[in-house]
Amino acid sequence: MAIEIEQPSVGLSKVAVSETHGEDSPYFAGWKAYNEDPYDESSNPSGVIQMGLAENQVSFDLLEEYLEQHSEASSWGKGSPGFRENALFQDYHGLESFRQAMAGFMEQIRGGRAKFDPDRVVLTAGATAANELLTFILANPGDALLVPTPYYPGFDRDLRWRTGAKIVPIHCDISNNFQVTTQALEAAYEGAVAMNINVRGVLITNPSNPLGVTIQRSVLEEILDFSTRKNIHLVSDEIYSGSTFSSSEFISIAEILEARGYKDSERVHIVYSLSKDLGLPGFRVGTIYSYNDKVVTTARRMSSFTLISSQTQHLLASMLSNKKFTENYIKENRERLRKRYEMIIQGLRSAGIECLKGNAGLFCWMNLSPLLETPTGEGEVALWKSILHEVKLNISPGSSCHCSEPGWFRVCFANMSEETLEVALKRIHNFMEQRKTASS
Amino acid sequence: MAIEIEQPSVGLSKVAVSETHGEDSPYFAGWKAYNEDPYDESSNPSGVIQMGLAENQVSFDLLEEYLEQHSEASSWGKGSPGFRENALFQDYHGLESFRQAMAGFMEQIRGGRAKFDPDRVVLTAGATAANELLTFILANPGDALLVPTPYYPGFDRDLRWRTGAKIVPIHCDISNNFQVTTQALEAAYEGAVAMNINVRGVLITNPSNPLGVTIQRSVLEEILDFSTRKNIHLVSDEIYSGSTFSSSEFISIAEILEARGYKDSERVHIVYSLSKDLGLPGFRVGTIYSYNDKVVTTARRMSSFTLISSQTQHLLASMLSNKKFTENYIKENRERLRKRYEMIIQGLRSAGIECLKGNAGLFCWMNLSPLLETPTGEGEVALWKSILHEVKLNISPGSSCHCSEPGWFRVCFANMSEETLEVALKRIHNFMEQRKTASS
Repeated sequence: MAIEIEQPSVGLSKVAVSETHGEDSPYFAGWKAYNEDPYDESSNPSGVIQMGLAENQVSFDLLEEYLEQHSEASSWGKGSPGFRENALFQDYHGLESFRQAMAGFMEQIRGGRAKFDPDRVVLTAGATAANELLTFILANPGDALLVPTPYYPGFDRDLRWRTGAKIVPIHCDISNNFQVTTQALEAAYEGAVAMNINVRGVLITNPSNPLGVTIQRSVLEEILDFSTRKNIHLVSDEIYSGSTFSSSEFISIAEILEARGYKDSERVHIVYSLSKDLGLPGFRVGTIYSYNDKVVTTARRMSSFTLISSQTQHLLASMLSNKKFTENYIKENRERLRKRYEMIIQGLRSAGIECLKGNAGLFCWMNLSPLLETPTGEGEVALWKSILHEVKLNISPGSSCHCSEPGWFRVCFANMSEETLEVALKRIHNFMEQRKTASS
Repeated sequence: MAIEIEQPSVGLSKVAVSETHGEDSPYFAGWKAYNEDPYDESSNPSGVIQMGLAENQVSFDLLEEYLEQHSEASSWGKGSPGFRENALFQDYHGLESFRQAMAGFMEQIRGGRAKFDPDRVVLTAGATAANELLTFILANPGDALLVPTPYYPGFDRDLRWRTGAKIVPIHCDISNNFQVTTQALEAAYEGAVAMNINVRGVLITNPSNPLGVTIQRSVLEEILDFSTRKNIHLVSDEIYSGSTFSSSEFISIAEILEARGYKDSERVHIVYSLSKDLGLPGFRVGTIYSYNDKVVTTARRMSSFTLISSQTQHLLASMLSNKKFTENYIKENRERLRKRYEMIIQGLRSAGIECLKGNAGLFCWMNLSPLLETPTGEGEVALWKSILHEVKLNISPGSSCHCSEPGWFRVCFANMSEETLEVALKRIHNFMEQRKTASS
């Protein structure tokens, strides 16, 4: 028998061995801690409460009620010809009925103040895929998108990992409630140019994750004007648009374009999803709405890599084309989120904690900077660790969102019952009391 | 008012403007011709018959029967807690029940001769996404995968478009029924090296699309040995494994690994899907089964861009874990495909046309080289055009599959009724008769 020579193990690509997937950040470490010791009212009352997950569970009863009354939406009855056609449907345009329903739902959320053409709706398996797909279309490897801080930690993966694109932060701070300014936009752009990085666009989230606030009209106007001056793209991720507490407070980039007669609209692309507003992340329903014909065509071809199950399109086409249902859902969901928000804000305030004034989303942006031992990123992580391991709450540190200022945390409030939220608030209250006692 | 200066329109990435999406090939041109004038028995009896679509419609009644008897699989009844949990489930591991069912189904298809561990099943929205995802993991931009010709035209898009990887063809020909040889493997590899291209793996389809044949054990052994000698990866796309007409004729690379005690298995990755064997392309269910731990972990993280709807996982977990159903389905589906295959082969033979001897798939590989005016690619396209526009059949020319020899065509037979297939065969018969008359 021949002597066996040890061969080096077979290698993987640079993308595969890179750390850009981001799973080693505190954002995901907190999730792991929760998974190992999850809170349960009766079986594990001292477990970790998950406040790091932007999930909407407050309006599920409305969806369940709809499904009870409309069983035809989710099942195929005896003798129904629907199953066969549906199972075979893999056209990357998506079901026409579903694209129409999506366009209509997006209009409704914006109070009818912007129109959406179903032919510009490109479907993707979630907003994660939509954001990556747009980056592939807009940026070459090494090119950058400008993104205001703080931003959703997942962008580091979604915009960069497989595309090879970069994120250049637009630094925002508490001095103007973290709103984007012309100076900050110009500084980010100039910084990129100085590093020989080709800037291909700005990506905003409106309403903002993690801030939980909508972007003001004047700021949107300025961001669009800036994009036009630089001749770059503008991506507006509006996945929390239906989670604004009052319909009138959210202004979509679509409304700005409509007011301008769609001048310069070919640089604008909107990302939407049903994961947050409808609370259906498992169903993987995202969309790109682009005003650029070439982007629509290319995105649709590219969506072959990330199509939505036709079974799910069938169910949601029925649900979202029922205007009576959607009207009530949108109104009721906003109201319930607003109540939850007020509950957590008041609870935190009575514990001596202030948050940025919010008007949207499934979270609030909490200021614990007075509690930092040192006003640094390390100080923030130390505080985050005690809250995770002592208070047993998983919240997301601002540093995972690239916040320039230490001491801010994103706290989710819609992925649990009111009772669990009360337990969480009680724990925070006790924690603050202990600290007061210790320092007095 | 200021004079308006025309600005150059905003640019897109190199990926976006490239032609690698492949939609300008005859493969897709034929689809368009069909869409513009689709055959219908009563309303358009002289329309184009679609024989370019590898779709399985022969066993839908079995799926429909299952759904009638198991309505709980697709619907959420009154008071069922299932909907809420299911709609929220977005863990990239997928539903455990579904991964188990997939692993079990893959074992059943292989007659229990290979075992699959549910923990190695990575879920993706279709095999299109699975193949792209694996390429991202195995190859850097500019690196190549070796692929035997003729191959599925979609690979030019799936393996190359967004990844920047290359395909280097392994040329196969009729002299040995298009089977891969050591010489062809070595020649492809050496050719790549001569062009300074880094070869990262071999990708085979077994059973082969477009050949409609399974790969022999000795050939599989040789391909694996070659991959080991070169220390490269081996991807085995087995999406037609359940569409082999006889269970015993299909040998999975999994069986070869099992026989070798899983030596060198870390370079092997299997792609599977439910689009062909179960006829559910609309549901977007694909999977990567890798024997490499690092590939499993990375692929799972990357699958965030292409997750399967949890609603669809829920339905199929129920269906595929019902062994009585799957056993009968697999057996009956094989038998029906074999009958269809024999029907088309005999019909073609009686028209004077021979096909490569097949034993799997939803198509046959038809030899029309005797009909070519000139034995070239141009001659083939000319013949393809007359078949499309005169005979009104959309079939796929071998050149779209990068076949080295002109005159071969892929003809699909499972995406239509027997009656329609008879009409198609009648048209071919008449076409051949006319040609005989014209040339005599």
